[in-house]
Amino acid sequence: MTAAQDVSVDEADIRAMMRGIGVAAKVAAYKLAGATAESKNAALHGAAAAIRARKDEILAANADDVNQAEAKGVKGSFLDRLTLDDDRVEMMAHGLEEVASLADPVGTVLAEWERPNGLKITRVRVPLGVIGVIYESRPNVTADAGGLCLKAGNAAILRGGSESFQSSRAILSGLRDGLRTAGLPEDAIQAPFSADRAAVGAMLTMVDSIDVIVPRGGKSLIERVQTESRIPVFAHLEGLCHTYVHCAADTQMARDIVLNSKMRRTGICGATETVLIDRSIAPELLSPIVDDLVGAGCEVRGDASARDIDGRIVPANDDDWDTEYLDAIVSVRVVDDIDDAITHVNNHGSNHTDAIVTADTAAAERFLANIDSGIVLHNASTQFADGGEFGMGAEIGISTGKMHARGPVGAEQLTSYKYVVRGAGQIRP
Amino acid sequence: MTAAQDVSVDEADIRAMMRGIGVAAKVAAYKLAGATAESKNAALHGAAAAIRARKDEILAANADDVNQAEAKGVKGSFLDRLTLDDDRVEMMAHGLEEVASLADPVGTVLAEWERPNGLKITRVRVPLGVIGVIYESRPNVTADAGGLCLKAGNAAILRGGSESFQSSRAILSGLRDGLRTAGLPEDAIQAPFSADRAAVGAMLTMVDSIDVIVPRGGKSLIERVQTESRIPVFAHLEGLCHTYVHCAADTQMARDIVLNSKMRRTGICGATETVLIDRSIAPELLSPIVDDLVGAGCEVRGDASARDIDGRIVPANDDDWDTEYLDAIVSVRVVDDIDDAITHVNNHGSNHTDAIVTADTAAAERFLANIDSGIVLHNASTQFADGGEFGMGAEIGISTGKMHARGPVGAEQLTSYKYVVRGAGQIRP
Repeated sequence: MTAAQDVSVDEADIRAMMRGIGVAAKVAAYKLAGATAESKNAALHGAAAAIRARKDEILAANADDVNQAEAKGVKGSFLDRLTLDDDRVEMMAHGLEEVASLADPVGTVLAEWERPNGLKITRVRVPLGVIGVIYESRPNVTADAGGLCLKAGNAAILRGGSESFQSSRAILSGLRDGLRTAGLPEDAIQAPFSADRAAVGAMLTMVDSIDVIVPRGGKSLIERVQTESRIPVFAHLEGLCHTYVHCAADTQMARDIVLNSKMRRTGICGATETVLIDRSIAPELLSPIVDDLVGAGCEVRGDASARDIDGRIVPANDDDWDTEYLDAIVSVRVVDDIDDAITHVNNHGSNHTDAIVTADTAAAERFLANIDSGIVLHNASTQFADGGEFGMGAEIGISTGKMHARGPVGAEQLTSYKYVVRGAGQIRP
Repeated sequence: MTAAQDVSVDEADIRAMMRGIGVAAKVAAYKLAGATAESKNAALHGAAAAIRARKDEILAANADDVNQAEAKGVKGSFLDRLTLDDDRVEMMAHGLEEVASLADPVGTVLAEWERPNGLKITRVRVPLGVIGVIYESRPNVTADAGGLCLKAGNAAILRGGSESFQSSRAILSGLRDGLRTAGLPEDAIQAPFSADRAAVGAMLTMVDSIDVIVPRGGKSLIERVQTESRIPVFAHLEGLCHTYVHCAADTQMARDIVLNSKMRRTGICGATETVLIDRSIAPELLSPIVDDLVGAGCEVRGDASARDIDGRIVPANDDDWDTEYLDAIVSVRVVDDIDDAITHVNNHGSNHTDAIVTADTAAAERFLANIDSGIVLHNASTQFADGGEFGMGAEIGISTGKMHARGPVGAEQLTSYKYVVRGAGQIRP
């Protein structure tokens, strides 16, 4: 690996560089597909050790990135996500060890059967191949995404935001140390040698060497990837999550779940953005819910019916029902009944995560069956929308698409399958 | 439904028509997602009965299509695929009954577990939603694809080739009869009201109402769909299948499998296009294989080593290794060993179907593990690459992609899943 540096190159050079990376990734992917669980886990443990050993180097590279970003006027949460410290380096190393402890999905027999002609058919889980991850300037994603792709037997091409270029290169060196010590090809995890943004455009057209693109970041990044990619994409554009308080909801449970769903963390994709409440219980239950929300510093916007009940609610406009605030703001709508609620969620939601609070099991089942979202919950907070909370271990994101992976995308979702057919000379009549 | 007619309209009108069809499909899909297996099967049986009852109407519409196509100079296999007769109408009806007899994939619990906090998580199979099928002028695909989408609880928008427009409309009427008699929404199966080709372009951009596009047809159709579609696509571009005769192959088995793989039907995607043979047995086994192929009317092209052994083999050029002949032509290459064979297949294949013939189990397992194709076979003909032969019942195609569905795409592959989480008031700490 060459020294990390941002050389000035033109777009044709970047494309040539990325093609080279793609060819090397494909070769590495074929080797990795046959790697044992033990060798992949050894590489993950080796990478964790190398990241700890390289801590000073990683922090120095990160300090350079942070200084350059500050000089450009970057601040706030962007700078916070870019900045590493001892704890964050340790979290990356620990995260790689956690991934090593997960079950290896590759090789699992998903189904097997024998045909009347004696052919034995087996459907076996195999790696996807080469995964391209495109993310913003969060250096820890380099370790998290690289480790998860490796666990599932995939080669990875990791393109982080240009402001985190040097940090990501330093972390990448640790990951490649791990691969090398385990006897696996270093090129199983690669990144562009330049921070030039043209690398993103190049990746999105590399249909011969990248099997799937995973974008991680804000809406504009994901929209660009979804629009430009010639390669299949795993992504969620947004999490416009709903919590529906049904007329048979337990009062305290409804209050607890609404408050937690909205306010535990407002900036994550599983945060509730809209609360729906049945007309029959709104007079009784809406104001206590608003008490909790306002008390926690949340702005509450609502429709006319909601505002008639509670004067603290400010008017919502038509756009509010389609807005992912990712902030301490919630929209509240009074609905006539469960069908009205289901229609609202399916029309305005983002197929991500939606919850019903009710003591009526039949109503709950109706909601769970009819909401067209990757995750539907009964009597639980939408903030549980997370691979870790599902017990899936690390996740690379949450998919709102219906193709291949839906909901949390963990190691298992980063695999495909193939049919293995064993015969004794059968020919087709 | 309006009478079938090809009205002259401009592209904006076509796009508006398709948007309307899309909205209706989405509404129907939500209803269909909750339909019981019994009602879907009743619709399939009803459709079969209606297609039989409408046989004269279907054949008359088809005669119009055929006459118009002949007037345009269409002939050969295109005309053959367009033409219906009593038997072919009966095959469509029977095919729908067969689909009814398959297991219903929807509602299957794929996994369930409980978290330490008491949350019960279930992964449940659900329909994909709305499937857009784009195919050539083969009217029977209207019944086959419509039936399979319905079985998996999906709404379908079926856009067949313009030369089959009237035939497809007549068959569609039968399918909708079936839906109506079963109490399911007729708009669960729709087709454009116009044969205008702009309908295809419109469908490929309808990201809000179509969940997946399935193209069925030749390479140019599939390439266009893969290039233009803004919606995920299930497709195989080509089936460049290999049969590898390993040095430990049984002589008679190798001859039988090669002949069947190539010549049983040369026009299907599972037909072998390239035979690889180990250098150590080529002097003994190649000429008998060429005897069989030439005797069956096959042209044999080969590399220098193959031609040195058998003078009937004509020279292959570099393009031959990347050519899907779909005809009575085969390319033969002598390889040094199994690694050489694996490299050739992964470099030149289309990730579709590849077979090894050998009595050496370890060599077979090595090939099966390292070939990156949806279907890999040991001691069996590549012509078994077919959903029916796999016992999956009807298929809508064979996917060479790794995302979502790989290999034969049957009813099960036309589904997605969702996570259903049942709690008792859990909030996230």
